[in-house]
Parts: sequence; structure tokens; C-alpha cells
Amino acid sequence: MSDHHDRWIDLRSDTVTQPSAAMRAAMAAAPVGDDVYADDPTVNRLQDFAAELFGFEAGLFAPSGTQTNLIALMTHCGRGDEYLVGQEAHTYKYEGGGAAVLGSIQPQPIANQPDGSIAISDIAAYIKPDDMHFARTRVLALENTIGGRVLPRDYVKAATDFAHAKGLVTHLDGARVCNAAVRQGIPLRDAAAGFDTVSVCLSKGLGAPVGSVLLGPRAFIEQGKRWRKMLGGGMRQAGVIAAAAHYALAHNVERLAEDHQNAADLSAGLARIEPLKVTTPQTNIFYVEIPEAACAPLHEALARQGIRASIGPHTRLVTHLDVTAADVKKTIAAFEAFFLDWNKQ
Amino acid sequence: MSDHHDRWIDLRSDTVTQPSAAMRAAMAAAPVGDDVYADDPTVNRLQDFAAELFGFEAGLFAPSGTQTNLIALMTHCGRGDEYLVGQEAHTYKYEGGGAAVLGSIQPQPIANQPDGSIAISDIAAYIKPDDMHFARTRVLALENTIGGRVLPRDYVKAATDFAHAKGLVTHLDGARVCNAAVRQGIPLRDAAAGFDTVSVCLSKGLGAPVGSVLLGPRAFIEQGKRWRKMLGGGMRQAGVIAAAAHYALAHNVERLAEDHQNAADLSAGLARIEPLKVTTPQTNIFYVEIPEAACAPLHEALARQGIRASIGPHTRLVTHLDVTAADVKKTIAAFEAFFLDWNKQ
Amino acid sequence: MSDHHDRWIDLRSDTVTQPSAAMRAAMAAAPVGDDVYADDPTVNRLQDFAAELFGFEAGLFAPSGTQTNLIALMTHCGRGDEYLVGQEAHTYKYEGGGAAVLGSIQPQPIANQPDGSIAISDIAAYIKPDDMHFARTRVLALENTIGGRVLPRDYVKAATDFAHAKGLVTHLDGARVCNAAVRQGIPLRDAAAGFDTVSVCLSKGLGAPVGSVLLGPRAFIEQGKRWRKMLGGGMRQAGVIAAAAHYALAHNVERLAEDHQNAADLSAGLARIEPLKVTTPQTNIFYVEIPEAACAPLHEALARQGIRASIGPHTRLVTHLDVTAADVKKTIAAFEAFFLDWNKQ
Amino acid sequence: MSDHHDRWIDLRSDTVTQPSAAMRAAMAAAPVGDDVYADDPTVNRLQDFAAELFGFEAGLFAPSGTQTNLIALMTHCGRGDEYLVGQEAHTYKYEGGGAAVLGSIQPQPIANQPDGSIAISDIAAYIKPDDMHFARTRVLALENTIGGRVLPRDYVKAATDFAHAKGLVTHLDGARVCNAAVRQGIPLRDAAAGFDTVSVCLSKGLGAPVGSVLLGPRAFIEQGKRWRKMLGGGMRQAGVIAAAAHYALAHNVERLAEDHQNAADLSAGLARIEPLKVTTPQTNIFYVEIPEAACAPLHEALARQGIRASIGPHTRLVTHLDVTAADVKKTIAAFEAFFLDWNKQ
Ligand SMILES: [Ca+2]
Ligand SMILES: [Ca+2]
Ligand SMILES: [Ca+2]
Ligand SMILES: [Ca+2]
Ligand SMILES: [Ca+2]
Ligand SMILES: [Ca+2]
Repeated sequence: MSDHHDRWIDLRSDTVTQPSAAMRAAMAAAPVGDDVYADDPTVNRLQDFAAELFGFEAGLFAPSGTQTNLIALMTHCGRGDEYLVGQEAHTYKYEGGGAAVLGSIQPQPIANQPDGSIAISDIAAYIKPDDMHFARTRVLALENTIGGRVLPRDYVKAATDFAHAKGLVTHLDGARVCNAAVRQGIPLRDAAAGFDTVSVCLSKGLGAPVGSVLLGPRAFIEQGKRWRKMLGGGMRQAGVIAAAAHYALAHNVERLAEDHQNAADLSAGLARIEPLKVTTPQTNIFYVEIPEAACAPLHEALARQGIRASIGPHTRLVTHLDVTAADVKKTIAAFEAFFLDWNKQ
Repeated sequence: MSDHHDRWIDLRSDTVTQPSAAMRAAMAAAPVGDDVYADDPTVNRLQDFAAELFGFEAGLFAPSGTQTNLIALMTHCGRGDEYLVGQEAHTYKYEGGGAAVLGSIQPQPIANQPDGSIAISDIAAYIKPDDMHFARTRVLALENTIGGRVLPRDYVKAATDFAHAKGLVTHLDGARVCNAAVRQGIPLRDAAAGFDTVSVCLSKGLGAPVGSVLLGPRAFIEQGKRWRKMLGGGMRQAGVIAAAAHYALAHNVERLAEDHQNAADLSAGLARIEPLKVTTPQTNIFYVEIPEAACAPLHEALARQGIRASIGPHTRLVTHLDVTAADVKKTIAAFEAFFLDWNKQ
Repeated sequence: MSDHHDRWIDLRSDTVTQPSAAMRAAMAAAPVGDDVYADDPTVNRLQDFAAELFGFEAGLFAPSGTQTNLIALMTHCGRGDEYLVGQEAHTYKYEGGGAAVLGSIQPQPIANQPDGSIAISDIAAYIKPDDMHFARTRVLALENTIGGRVLPRDYVKAATDFAHAKGLVTHLDGARVCNAAVRQGIPLRDAAAGFDTVSVCLSKGLGAPVGSVLLGPRAFIEQGKRWRKMLGGGMRQAGVIAAAAHYALAHNVERLAEDHQNAADLSAGLARIEPLKVTTPQTNIFYVEIPEAACAPLHEALARQGIRASIGPHTRLVTHLDVTAADVKKTIAAFEAFFLDWNKQ
Repeated sequence: MSDHHDRWIDLRSDTVTQPSAAMRAAMAAAPVGDDVYADDPTVNRLQDFAAELFGFEAGLFAPSGTQTNLIALMTHCGRGDEYLVGQEAHTYKYEGGGAAVLGSIQPQPIANQPDGSIAISDIAAYIKPDDMHFARTRVLALENTIGGRVLPRDYVKAATDFAHAKGLVTHLDGARVCNAAVRQGIPLRDAAAGFDTVSVCLSKGLGAPVGSVLLGPRAFIEQGKRWRKMLGGGMRQAGVIAAAAHYALAHNVERLAEDHQNAADLSAGLARIEPLKVTTPQTNIFYVEIPEAACAPLHEALARQGIRASIGPHTRLVTHLDVTAADVKKTIAAFEAFFLDWNKQ
């Protein structure tokens, strides 16, 4: 980056969150051991805490959500099995195709509905018959939140019940499931209900520097450890980062409501600006339509004000614990100033 | 099968075609050699003949269309590359997911339009940016005919031009491309135009007992031989079956028009029967909606008359060189008789 | 090949065997059906006949031994499982690594002993402990004959008993198991004893143009059909080649003794020629050490006499049903004449 | 663990090393950013520092050596390529077969010589000809140190020169390459000379809690980032652990000499005890033969003294920065006391 600012307002993603001083203190103080030998007390404590919080038997800490999702799919699916997933799902689209490429699993992506769900009639239609022409359908994978949208609780119940009735396993890419729970005002375990396994990211809105946790039955987690090891996710004194993750999960869930409020305020502020078209956020993510010709100069104008965003015709904006209410105001002002000029041309 | 008939009318698929006496004579007389050493003159002759006919540099004979399509994708795509394909495409849906499972290739299925095409706007939307989050989009794979529908020539030209402009390779699953060409009244090489590689099945409407041929540039075919060998498609004195395939390609293309006429007649005859809903065939395949309760008794009634069909609520019927105009009349009569009774209930 | 001969003496491999007139007649007369629907009576008859002959529940016909071995390994091993195999084994070394590359199976090759066996102490040493650092050892794969050597019956019993005691499955690459049985003067089923599954090639010494058969328990064969389909080995009216394979198995087993005699005679004849070093064949394959400088002129001299061989410093010579006793004499004479000259230089 | 000690003497592996106070301070103070956007200054600084130190263009930080080795192999080898590797190599044997299972790469393991090298004549013999029967040999992978043995410099030069002359790429699993360099008294870049790419573990003797770094040409590292992302090794504010890794590399290399001295002392002390058979360490690892019956009671006796070791008939003992000279004396005394008793029986 050519511009220098003491502190950027970074709206690109909630992955950019920085570990706080308290989190760093927790890391510095954490007792650690060799987690490949299952000897790291801080990792074990995190895994147990997360499992308890979300209502599962056991947990597995790994370096990323890409890996926890991949471990889940490789544990649920043998070579040649198939999983049903949304066309827009991170697991299918944004993780390089790892399930197919590394895991020899057939993906069956299905169009997401406008609310982020996968229609149950589509799930029914895409389950393959037991015939050697077809891959064996094994898993329904949902994502919540997806593109910032919260899956309705009734839908989640209906979809997972339907999947189970058809003999499928259900997996949740819960990278931002805490945002969903907070938005819906329900406990984390209720947000995870219906799923056999869940992946939760700790380095997004929760603010930990590194790591995700995979939750499920104990036997599943034991098998998952093999794939984690093979994928290169077996870490040694991983307690140093698990300490931060534990802190994040213990302290930073409820405050996601602030991010949601900031997103709502930012969205409302931008919606008043001509010619922007702005979606209404359900959580901490929303989208802005920007005229193509404005994108490059807007990007520059924002950068000069210390604001980072992935500006394009279809811009995603994300709030998180390092974006304050004041930052929101400053950002709205920066957009206003830019388009005041722009609209004069 | 519990019923015995001297000769079945088999409407399940055009794969059931039997080798004719002339074809068997060609097999019996064929000079052969060890094709793994490229020493089989009959295989070489078939490969050259097919390449010439469809306008390609070279050809490769293999035991099935599943394998020629898989060889094509594995030659075009390295580990981690992606191909765009229709949700209904045989290559994606009906071949067990081999591209993903065996080839470590990411499939990106896209909804087929009602005419069997993939919208060019969808092709544009599904090509991934060059970013490490995404698989590398490499191939556009179309199928013609698809579900008996013929892709419009203008569409094929526009789609393959667009793909090439975007740096993609184009592959045609031309299992039934001869049906398309005959229907459109164009030479085979015109039906293959726009595609870098084409797979053609010889054991369907053309009537050969076994085999498909993959066509493309010479260097592509040389690389394809490696994958054919690894997949177990390297055969020895394969000339015995290539002789039949050659016969099929030399003698049985133009006569596909009869199959199309028979399909049209059968479709028209069935359309007059209450309560059937029948599609209008473009080639040798069409679909009939049948009340679910009628399916099992209809299946039995047909079998008693020596007629085999995969009867279900959404029945596919297929004509081919072992279905005559008389067979069509007999089949219509059998349906009529059945529903005459059925409608009385 | 630049030289033209009415009939070559081809000592490169027993894969070059040509279908006989009787075999071609069997092909021409065979009733066929669509084997993907399991409707081909000739394929079914071959599979049953082979299963009965070798003492197994069921059989599966496929286009090559590379594919039957790969189907066996993919059926026995899930993703990440390991098989023990000889360093010189065809399955490991000569099939492009398909088990690893396509099947996601870890190969553990072990040095072959001079007699072609794998030492039981090595089998013991290479079985991995149940620990997530290691692949899960699942299969012991032997090959018989291997490089023309016959595995001793006591060894086969001891090795397969040991493997079973350790919880492994046993697979035999029996590409030339009929040669082993004939040499040992035992029934085919005794030669297959101890193995859970066996792959038998019909296109080598037995003389069929195309095909191998995989034998094993019925449930294994049913699962194997899925992998055959995915690999592209599902053929349609495959009865046309299964008829030849059936003929080969019914008529050409006992006569392998002639090939063994011819190999013995050829080996003895060559062993008398200075400076050749010749191994003593146990079956139809032996090796000749040839001075490097002599290789190219010898290859040419033989070709002028209508003799094909893969001449190199370490030349493999192979007899089969298209090599007669007279051919052996002619070949010895050709070598003698060449080295008479050569030794004068 | 049932026994409780304030501080264990842990001889199982050098992976058990704990981050020091200074290292934790470095972690607490490190500026961080989102490394998936390449925005983490501490990760970038580590990668550059390591690249410079070992003489490469660029570096890539990842959560484990299993992953850096796998990334290297997947970047060097396409689907179906082969790598030559020692039978005892960690990459082949101890990483679950990831290269084959996830990477579709054919492993060609070769017997290690007693000094840990792979004979150059074996390398020559195992390179496959360019023929479709064989996988394409692409990489020679060595490991240094291997089982604590240091590969002779002349050997490394000869082997890598030979590999390059044959068109292969060379990769070093340098998990403990710093131990090799210190033992040989040469700069790290000399220990890495001859290799196109090197993987270095920072969490073993160097004492970092988590992480390895892969070094090589810039274009290779750029491609490697794709595989790291797909494998789930793309971390966010990874600077918190990279800071410790940087500290380890900056401060803990030269002190490995102490570990080597401690290993020598421990080995010498144990060698004096009946009936132990002890190897002479070249670096920080050696092996002790222990009568099977003594193993379980010895393990317990050591645990009671606060000493952890993976006691078995063939025990590996490892020294590292958390094992002091006093610990060595205490360990020798514990063994002596145990065998004094044991020998009386
Ligand atoms: Ca973060
Ligand atoms: Ca046919
Ligand atoms: Ca794969
Ligand atoms: Ca043959
Ligand atoms: Ca450590
Ligand atoms: Ca694979």
C-alpha cells in the first residue's frame, strides 16, 4: 500500500481483525505442550470449551476454516462420495475446490435462493439414486451466515430434518455462525442444532489471529485428526494461538451486535448517496452497487482517508471489532464527499 | 427378465443396439496387432478415419465414452483446474464424478437452459478470477445432443467463440453428435466445429458393440494415451472391435434419420393417448409423463408384448437401428390398449 | 516398422498373441446384450466360468489387467489406505502409478527377492502401526508369475496366511497365473488359493484379443462394478470380446506348457552363444544379457529375418502361442549367425 | 499423563520444545496483518529473513513441515508425476502418504543406505524411462538430517548434480537442516546448496511453537501459495507465530551444538549400562536397543523421575533446548538405577 496511516479503517473483511492487548496477554501466559501428542492443555481447553458451547461431544483446532471444512468433508465422504452445497458456498467456491481436488469428493453445487438457503425441493431433486452411474450423495453442507444473510431457523430445521430422513449427514460451515446466533438472539448451541458437525472460525469477527474449530461426535473428531495431520494442520505448541481463540470465544460473541449495528448505520448512510444501490445488512456484511467508472477514483479517495475497501461494481463491505461507530461516520462522509464531486461531472 | 421373446423391442437406450451381420463379418476379417505398441492396423485405420471425418488431426479409440470424456478432461486440466459443464451433462452427472474423484478436477456445473444450452452470460459469470481462492477455470464442456435436444449452430459458435476469447479450451461430449449433424443436415465436421476436442460414441445409435473415439490435436492425443493407459483403457488386439466401430461410422450415420422419424412417429402416436404428456423429439429421444400409479402395470403389460422400456413418471424413450417402423406401431398399440383399460377404472 | 514380412516371430511379449480362427468364429457367433445393464449373456457366462475355474464367487470382465488390478485396489482400499507390493510389480511400477494417482492409495513397494517373492519379514516390517502419522496398511498384493518366475506354493501359503493373520486382504495380480499353474501342474483354483481376489489376463498367453477378469467375493465384485464404470471400463455389447476370452480360457490353458518348452529350448540355444548370458526360464519368459554395442545391429539383423524383440543390454524374451518350435530354431540360428560375425571383429 | 512434575525432561522429540520468555515477548509485540492478503509484516519479515539465510529468492510460512513438504511436492509434480525418496523419509513414511493421497503423485521410495543417503546408482536405476507405462520421474527428495544422521556434503553435491543432470528437480526436507549445518560447521546456505527448494522446521530444535518455512524461487513460492490455501494453511494474523519463528531462527541455531553435546554425553552414559546397545549420535538423535521385557517397567520408572521417553525395543532419544546437561546426568542416573535392579533379577 502506498498510503500510510497510523490506523486503517479496513472494510474488506472481518478476517483483518487484530488481536487485542488482552488477547495477546492470554497468548503470552498460556501453558502449552505438543498438540500432535495431544499434550497442549490450552488447545484441549479450547476444544472442550467450544464443544460445550455449541453442544457437541468434541472439538478439533486447526489453522483455518478452509481446513476444518475440508477435514469434515473428508471424514464424512469416502472417495467417490458426493456432497450437496450451495453454488455460492465458501466451501465449494472459495476454497480452490479442495474437496474435489484433494479429497476425491464429487461436489454437487445447487443454486442458492435469494435468502441464502438451498430449496428443499432442490435438495430432494439432487440426491442421486443408488446406481453406479452416480456418485453416492452423503452430505448436505449449509453455510450460516452466507453473504451476511442469516438462514431462518425454521428452514434450518426443515432442511436438516429432510437430509437426515434421506440418510444424509449434515455439516454447517459456521464461519460466521456466531453472527447468526447473535442476530437471532439465540444460544450458540441452538444455532448449531440440526447439524452433525460444525466448523467455526475464530479469526473473523471474534478477533482471534489464527484458527478455526471443528465440532462433532468424538469418533468423527478422532478420524478428523488423521486428515488434519495429512493436510499439514497438526501444529506443535498450538496453545499460543488457541489461547487467543479461547479468549475470542469467551469475550467477543455478544459484542458482534455492535458490528451489526455499525453495518446497519453504514448501509443506511450509503443508501442516501446517489447513485449507490445498497443492500440492507442482516449482520455485518452488505453490498453496494457502484458505477464502474467511479470505482478506481473512489478506491483512491478512500485510501487517502485511511479507508480500505475492495471497491468494485458489486462491492462487499464488512464491519468488525476494529471498525468503530466513528469509523462508520468517517466512511459515510468520505463516500458523500466523493460522490458530491462525481455527480457534478 | 422373466418374459422370453425371440426379439425384444428395446426402447431403454440406443446403447442396446446389436452388431449386425455385416459388422460381425468385418470384425471376423480384421487384421489386428498390439495396440499398446500402436501396432493394430484396424485401430489405426479407425482413428484416422474418424479424425478425418470430424476434421481433427488425430484420434484415440477407447472402451467407452465415459473414458474418452475423462481422458479429455484429464489432458486439458491439471490437478486443481476447473471445467464448466451443464448440470444435466452426462460427463458431470452420470459418470460417477470421475473428473473430480479420479482426475482431481473441480467441476463447475451450470444450469442447462430449456434447449440444453448453457447461457453465455452464465459461462461469463462462472469463469473464476485468477486468485488463489478459486480453482483455475480451463475448459467449457458442452454436450450435443443433450437429452435428445440439438444445440443450435449459432449458439455453439457463439459459446465456443466466447470461451476461446476468455482463454478456455472447448470440449464436446459428442456421444450423439452424429444425431445432431443428421438432424441439422450438416457434415460431421461442421457439427464438431468450434471444439478443440470431441468425444464420439460408436456403440449407441451407430450400432457398434463397444467403443468411443476421442478426437483432437495430435499432441493432445499423445498425452491422452498416457491417461488411457493409466485408466486401464489400453487394449491389445483392439482391432476386433475397432473394425465394428469403423463399419458403424462408415455405414450407419445417414440412417439415423430413420430413428428420428421413428421417434417422431412414436411420440405423435403416444401424444394422442390420454393421460400421457409427450415431448416432441428433435432426434431419437423424447420423454413421456405417465401417472405414477400406471407405471408398474404398464411396464408389465409392455413386457408381455416384448417391449422393454424404463417406465417411470418421467419416462425416456429412445429409438435406434434395432427399432423398426413396425415396432413403433406395435408399441403405440400396446400403450393404447393399456390406457384404454386403465382409463375405464 | 520398415521391414515387411508375411508373418513376424514376435518375442516382445505374449500380449501380441493374435486371435485364432476358432476364436474369431466364437466372437462372430456370440449372443450379446448391453453389459452396463448386465444383459450380455456371453459376458455373464465368461464371468461365471472364470469364477468357477479359479474358485471364486463372482467375476468382472474389464478391458485390461491394468484396470482389473486398479479396480481391486480401489475396492479394497479407501482414500489414504496403503497396499504392500513388490518394487518390480506390474501394478506398482508399470501401470503409471494409477493406484496413487487415480485411487488416492499409498503404495508401499518392497524389494522383491531373487525368486520374485516378498520376504515375510519385510511384510511384517512394512505394516504400519495404527497411528495418524502413517497410512493404514490394508492389502498385500503379490504377482504370479513375476518376470516369468513362479512363486513357490509354500511361500504363497505362508505369505497369505501371514497377511490374513495381520488383518490384511490379499490380492493376486495373476496376469500370468495360468502359466504358474501349468508349470506347477496344479489346478487353477489351487494357484489362486490364499488370495481374496485375483486378476487374470486373457489377452496374454491365453490368446484372447482383449480383456481381463477380476475374481472375488460377490459383494466385492458388485462394488468393483462402480469403479469399473467410473474408470470407463463399462462396455456395451462386450460379449463379442468376452466370447474370445471364454474360448481362450476353455482351450488355451494346458497348451501353455508348449510355450514353456519353447522358452526352455530358446534359452538353451542362446546360452550356447558367446558372449550371451541367459537366465533359465521357469515359464515363458527369460532374460538375455547382450553387450550394449551389439544391441542395435542385432535388432536390425533379427528384423531382416522377420524376428521382433525388444533388444537391449537386458533383453526380455517371451514365447507364446504364436511362436512355434520352428520359430525357436530360426531365432537361435539368427542369433548364432549374428554373433559368429560379431565375435570375429 | 498420570504423573505430575513441575517440569518434565522430555526426550521423545525436539518438537516438544517450549517457547521461551523472550520468544513470547516477541510474539506479544509483533505487528500483524492479514497474511492471506500478504499484509502481515512479521510473516513477510520472517519469509525474507529465512530466504536470505538459506540463499533462496523467497519463502512461505506454513503451519507444519508436513505441509511445506507437501506444498513443495505438489508444486513440483503435476498429477501423475513421480518423486524419488528414501524408504525412511518422513515425507514418504510419516506424513500419511499425503503426496499420493492428496496430491495424486506417485512415490518411488528407495532403500536408505546405512548413512541415510540414497545410493546414486539407485537414483539412476529408479528414474523411469519416458514411456506411458511409467509415471514421470520429476523430483529427488532427500532429508537432512535423517534419523539424526548428517548427509555428507560430497554426497549431497554428487546426488543433486546427478539429479539435475537427469532433468530432475531437487527438494530437501530440511526439518533439521540447521542441526546438519551446525554439526558440519558450515553456513545454512551451504547446507541448502544443491537443492532447488528446502523445507525448514522452526518448531523442533529451534524452539518455535508452530511453523515451518518453505524456500525456493519466487515463482515456485507464488504457486505454492495456491496449494497452501487449498490445504488450509493460509492463516490470518500469522505474525503472532511468525514472530516466534523469526526469534528462533535468529537466536537458536548456533546453540544446537549444545544439544549435540548433550546427546553425545547421554549416549556415552547409556552405552556403559548393561544390556543397552546405543548408537553414537551425529547430532541430537540416537537410538537405544532395550530388552523388550524391560520396556514397560523402565518407562514407568523414568516417568516417576519426571522423564518422558518413547521407550520400546528400539528407542529413539532426542535432545533439544529444554534438555540441560543436568537433565542428561539425571537421565543417565535413572537408567543406571533401573538396570542395576533389573540385572539382579
Ligand atoms: Ca483476525
Ligand atoms: Ca450397441
Ligand atoms: Ca483426487
Ligand atoms: Ca493377445
Ligand atoms: Ca516446539
Ligand atoms: Ca488422488
